Amino acid sequence: MIDCYMASTTNSRRASVGLSEAGLSYTVHAMDLRKKDQSTPEHLARNPYGKVPVIVDSDGPGGKTATVFESGAILLYVAEKAGKLYGKDALDRIEVQKWFTLHMNGSVPFLGALKNHPTLKDDCARVVRVIDDHLGRQQYFAGTFSIADICFYPRVAGFDQSVFPIDDHKNIARWIAEVGARPGTREGMSQPKS
Amino acid sequence: MIDCYMASTTNSRRASVGLSEAGLSYTVHAMDLRKKDQSTPEHLARNPYGKVPVIVDSDGPGGKTATVFESGAILLYVAEKAGKLYGKDALDRIEVQKWFTLHMNGSVPFLGALKNHPTLKDDCARVVRVIDDHLGRQQYFAGTFSIADICFYPRVAGFDQSVFPIDDHKNIARWIAEVGARPGTREGMSQPKS
Repeated sequence: MIDCYMASTTNSRRASVGLSEAGLSYTVHAMDLRKKDQSTPEHLARNPYGKVPVIVDSDGPGGKTATVFESGAILLYVAEKAGKLYGKDALDRIEVQKWFTLHMNGSVPFLGALKNHPTLKDDCARVVRVIDDHLGRQQYFAGTFSIADICFYPRVAGFDQSVFPIDDHKNIARWIAEVGARPGTREGMSQPKS
Repeated sequence: MIDCYMASTTNSRRASVGLSEAGLSYTVHAMDLRKKDQSTPEHLARNPYGKVPVIVDSDGPGGKTATVFESGAILLYVAEKAGKLYGKDALDRIEVQKWFTLHMNGSVPFLGALKNHPTLKDDCARVVRVIDDHLGRQQYFAGTFSIADICFYPRVAGFDQSVFPIDDHKNIARWIAEVGARPGTREGMSQPKS
């Protein structure tokens, strides 16, 4: 059984989209961040950093319980557990890792910080151009739909266009529409229900 | 043969420390960022984002050439190729992934941005406290020395203490001293030679 502790946040939805796209069943526990659900002793035992999402899998490796925090680590865990979403072969797996890492490390943080740090606009424009060019050459970030796509999607779906005009980039806009129409992605993005 | 295109930067040294710690032989190509070596057509073909480090492994999966950009992706590649630095078992691998991801996503970016964005100080203090507590309970981030350690080390080794007093955190200071004494880490940190 997989329990997913999450809120209505971009990072949380990486976890729920990953779980849904991997076809793993999971129970959502909606956390109210305003009520500081993330700072209770119970949650700090799951993640000392006191953030969401966290998943707890009672059927982890060797039948032991695995507790995973950080949305990127959850995506790696889900992909390895399900044997999905991690490229079509060994070379393609490397492509997944490159773009997955870029989104964690270089693209999504820029977009996320842009509202409060407008000086990041040039960096942001540069990485968005690289991503748009890449998606002009292929359907997904790697050869098949993967955690590299899932890592990026919740950030740019519904992004505030007044902060940065994502939709001006036609290949990204095409990709957003396609990914957003996937049943697994839709299910994951609709969490938490309450 | 592995070619490593790098400069005297934190991110570059993640790659060289990873390669050295994995026991893989590699040829360093020093890039002069002031001369814009990273923006030549040759380098943009390796990484469209025009950044270092990049590794090119002529003996990648299936004997094919693998080109890997993003320091985090390089660390994942190196760990999987060498079958090292990725935890002592499946559960420990999850610990590696959690802390590896935290350093890419939450700890290192805060530290790196602190000089120009002092408003990040509270976030930074919080994550550093979590890390210090963790390293008070165990020698390395996971059960064995791993890419989670390598991801963090180049950022905090020689960190400007006037920006943030890393050394006030005794467990991190202990860890910095221990990791910095490792022959592989020392070799990687000494790159590029020229």
